[in-house]
Amino acid sequence: MTLDRAVAQRFAQASRAEFEGALASLVEIPSVSAAPEHRGDLERAAARAAEILTELGAHAEILETPGAPLVVGGFLLDPGLPTVTLYNHLDVQPAGEPEWKSEPFRFTRDGQDIYRGRGTTDDKGPALTAAWGAKLAREHGVPLNIRVLWELEEEIGSPNFRAGLERHQAALQTDSIVVSDTVWLTRGKPSTPAGLRGMQSFTLSLVTGAHDLHSGLVGGAARNPFSELVCLAAEMFDGRSGQVKIPGFYDDALPLSAAEAASFRASGFQLDQFLRDHHQPLLRTHDPAEVMARVWAQPTMEIHGFAGGYSGPGVKSAVPARAELKMSCRMVPNMRGERVMEQIQAFVAARAPEVVVRSEGRLEAYRGLTDGPYAEAVLAAYQFGFGERAAIVREGVSIGAVPTMAEVLGAPILFMGLSLPEHGYHAPNEFYDWPQAGGGMAAFAKYFERVAQIPR
Amino acid sequence: MTLDRAVAQRFAQASRAEFEGALASLVEIPSVSAAPEHRGDLERAAARAAEILTELGAHAEILETPGAPLVVGGFLLDPGLPTVTLYNHLDVQPAGEPEWKSEPFRFTRDGQDIYRGRGTTDDKGPALTAAWGAKLAREHGVPLNIRVLWELEEEIGSPNFRAGLERHQAALQTDSIVVSDTVWLTRGKPSTPAGLRGMQSFTLSLVTGAHDLHSGLVGGAARNPFSELVCLAAEMFDGRSGQVKIPGFYDDALPLSAAEAASFRASGFQLDQFLRDHHQPLLRTHDPAEVMARVWAQPTMEIHGFAGGYSGPGVKSAVPARAELKMSCRMVPNMRGERVMEQIQAFVAARAPEVVVRSEGRLEAYRGLTDGPYAEAVLAAYQFGFGERAAIVREGVSIGAVPTMAEVLGAPILFMGLSLPEHGYHAPNEFYDWPQAGGGMAAFAKYFERVAQIPR
Repeated sequence: MTLDRAVAQRFAQASRAEFEGALASLVEIPSVSAAPEHRGDLERAAARAAEILTELGAHAEILETPGAPLVVGGFLLDPGLPTVTLYNHLDVQPAGEPEWKSEPFRFTRDGQDIYRGRGTTDDKGPALTAAWGAKLAREHGVPLNIRVLWELEEEIGSPNFRAGLERHQAALQTDSIVVSDTVWLTRGKPSTPAGLRGMQSFTLSLVTGAHDLHSGLVGGAARNPFSELVCLAAEMFDGRSGQVKIPGFYDDALPLSAAEAASFRASGFQLDQFLRDHHQPLLRTHDPAEVMARVWAQPTMEIHGFAGGYSGPGVKSAVPARAELKMSCRMVPNMRGERVMEQIQAFVAARAPEVVVRSEGRLEAYRGLTDGPYAEAVLAAYQFGFGERAAIVREGVSIGAVPTMAEVLGAPILFMGLSLPEHGYHAPNEFYDWPQAGGGMAAFAKYFERVAQIPR
Repeated sequence: MTLDRAVAQRFAQASRAEFEGALASLVEIPSVSAAPEHRGDLERAAARAAEILTELGAHAEILETPGAPLVVGGFLLDPGLPTVTLYNHLDVQPAGEPEWKSEPFRFTRDGQDIYRGRGTTDDKGPALTAAWGAKLAREHGVPLNIRVLWELEEEIGSPNFRAGLERHQAALQTDSIVVSDTVWLTRGKPSTPAGLRGMQSFTLSLVTGAHDLHSGLVGGAARNPFSELVCLAAEMFDGRSGQVKIPGFYDDALPLSAAEAASFRASGFQLDQFLRDHHQPLLRTHDPAEVMARVWAQPTMEIHGFAGGYSGPGVKSAVPARAELKMSCRMVPNMRGERVMEQIQAFVAARAPEVVVRSEGRLEAYRGLTDGPYAEAVLAAYQFGFGERAAIVREGVSIGAVPTMAEVLGAPILFMGLSLPEHGYHAPNEFYDWPQAGGGMAAFAKYFERVAQIPR
């Protein structure tokens, strides 16, 4: 018997108190992966998460990695059935912003439906919502192994995730993966990305002398490493338009198909809301289609800052001996970080051979599915949970775990986020809400039901 | 009777112990003008300097300014005689460098002839050398009023010097001024600059949003203030050659005359020593004539650093909301800071109207004398003290007090420095030495003798 809306609603209502208690207990563990002093909290969050799974009637265990542990568990029925893996993360961003109106690591309620605290929406709330969705699917007899895979280092770029997956690869075999860590464009209109941008960070550094020099004594004859790096950066890209001038940079980038462009236009993207969400008075373009293309489907080059020289108040007039330029490129599907680094290195070597180019981190882009049974299952799930057809978009943000899972586990990855822009990913006063949780439980249960019907 | 070499040598030998004691007592007062906690030491240095003048048989008083005091005194004989003013400064640079091998504010000796400590060569040693030269001139009966004017804020750009001069203008009237705060090119070959560069510092700042943004969420559509300032700076000048591209920038710069260029070539400038002194393996040019022209007689544009963005280890990939570029131009005679700022502002307004240009400090250039009786007196004095004809060069460094004295006191300014490159202006292990001091006393006495013969 197909899962129907009334059953799902009754399940959500009946589960609400237990869900809220579980979310409160996780939010109150400050699992900040960026801060070494919170290492113990990562362990405590893993232990509490395993306990929650056990309370739900699921299997749970804690797997070691070279870094923070993984929580692995779920409802595993029969090796003969297909397996879906549910990926979320339970670590959180730091919460030092002075704008917090409540204690960030207290779970506080705002009216009936708002749950406030660091990690409520990124990503503890969606993680538990999906787990309760799995419980509903289980209670409804869906013939599917549902595995939970919860990471605790996502906010720092998943440095040990690959090693953890490889260590436990045999136990983690799966037919598909669903990730719940993305944000809709607007309440009431679900969206699911069919691709993520990657990111290649790098530095350009130049040393021209042993120590800083007096600009009166040597200025004019002495080289200035800041001036030379500025010159080089201006040759690499146009800092006003963002256009990259390095030969071949755009060659591998997957062009946006007409179908995806049409799907973007139907996504509910609102330019004025985008400007408000990001407190940006002016963008490089104000054509909404062009803004979506730029943030979801085009590569970038950015300058994040400089090291070296004088950065205090006013001006100190020494000629610096060294300068370092901190940059990154977001990459779109089909681009590879290694190739981007080769292009940058070749460009710099030809124009400024003394400049040292150093790769500082790489997250590959990911190309997801826009059609086929898994994509249709996502659309059906959102329709069931929220009564709206989801828009297929892309995600401009990089999630390092995604290309890693694609590579190590070799399974397709779908995205079923539940967060809203106003929830405030990485922002002060972060929150999650019951309508997204209750609808999300229904949507995930329906997703599992549909996936169970996909032939292996 | 003309002052002869034997008399001068006997005087120097006889004065040596007293000179060294006076220098030791001044060096051991840490008169660091940049550090507010040393304000009391500036007062103590002024008091001790006045005491030294009194011990020399000179008049001395301490004049108040809105900042640190001025020490004014000397041998004032008769208002009917011409007056020369001897300018030095008694404040020093900070001495926090880890490379110091002795306590920087202990006067220590290295062999017989080396005096080590912060301020020994910049500028306490030359100040006292010139004062002992004045005493010798006085003992020899030179008919000239010799006024000492010692400042205590030179190292911070003389912020209160103009106000001090204006307040005491009537008492400071003078026929000429001699400044002893410059550095020879090499030991054994005196040099005297006939001009100083000025300096105009400024910042360019740009704000594009309310706070830093996630480069995944907005990158490509959002403006990046670092990227835009880099673009603008690359339009303002060529960071490799140093060539400024702002229209009119070079128009007012006094061209180097053939006579001055010839004098530069005869100056004893050694490119390999210049490279060693500044620990620079490579310059923008290795033609010695071009290097001298660039550091002494051509204007510059430099980038000193950026504020804003990320400058820690590695890369953090936020799109910054604001950036500030810290720059300066050295100016040559006939250029004026106000005009340079107007040119920069007009250029920026046309290309990047949101960028705020802010003047952060201005020291005007100074054009000195290359011939006439004062310049000849300098050459004769160095010949007498050191047995060598001095080279007439220019000084790339800006001394804010010089254009201020030229403007307020309306008198010609000559330069008779005694420091050597190896003494280490602004460097750790700074020192001064007895050969420069003993020869300097003779040179200054001879200078006063020659100046006394110049008709008013």
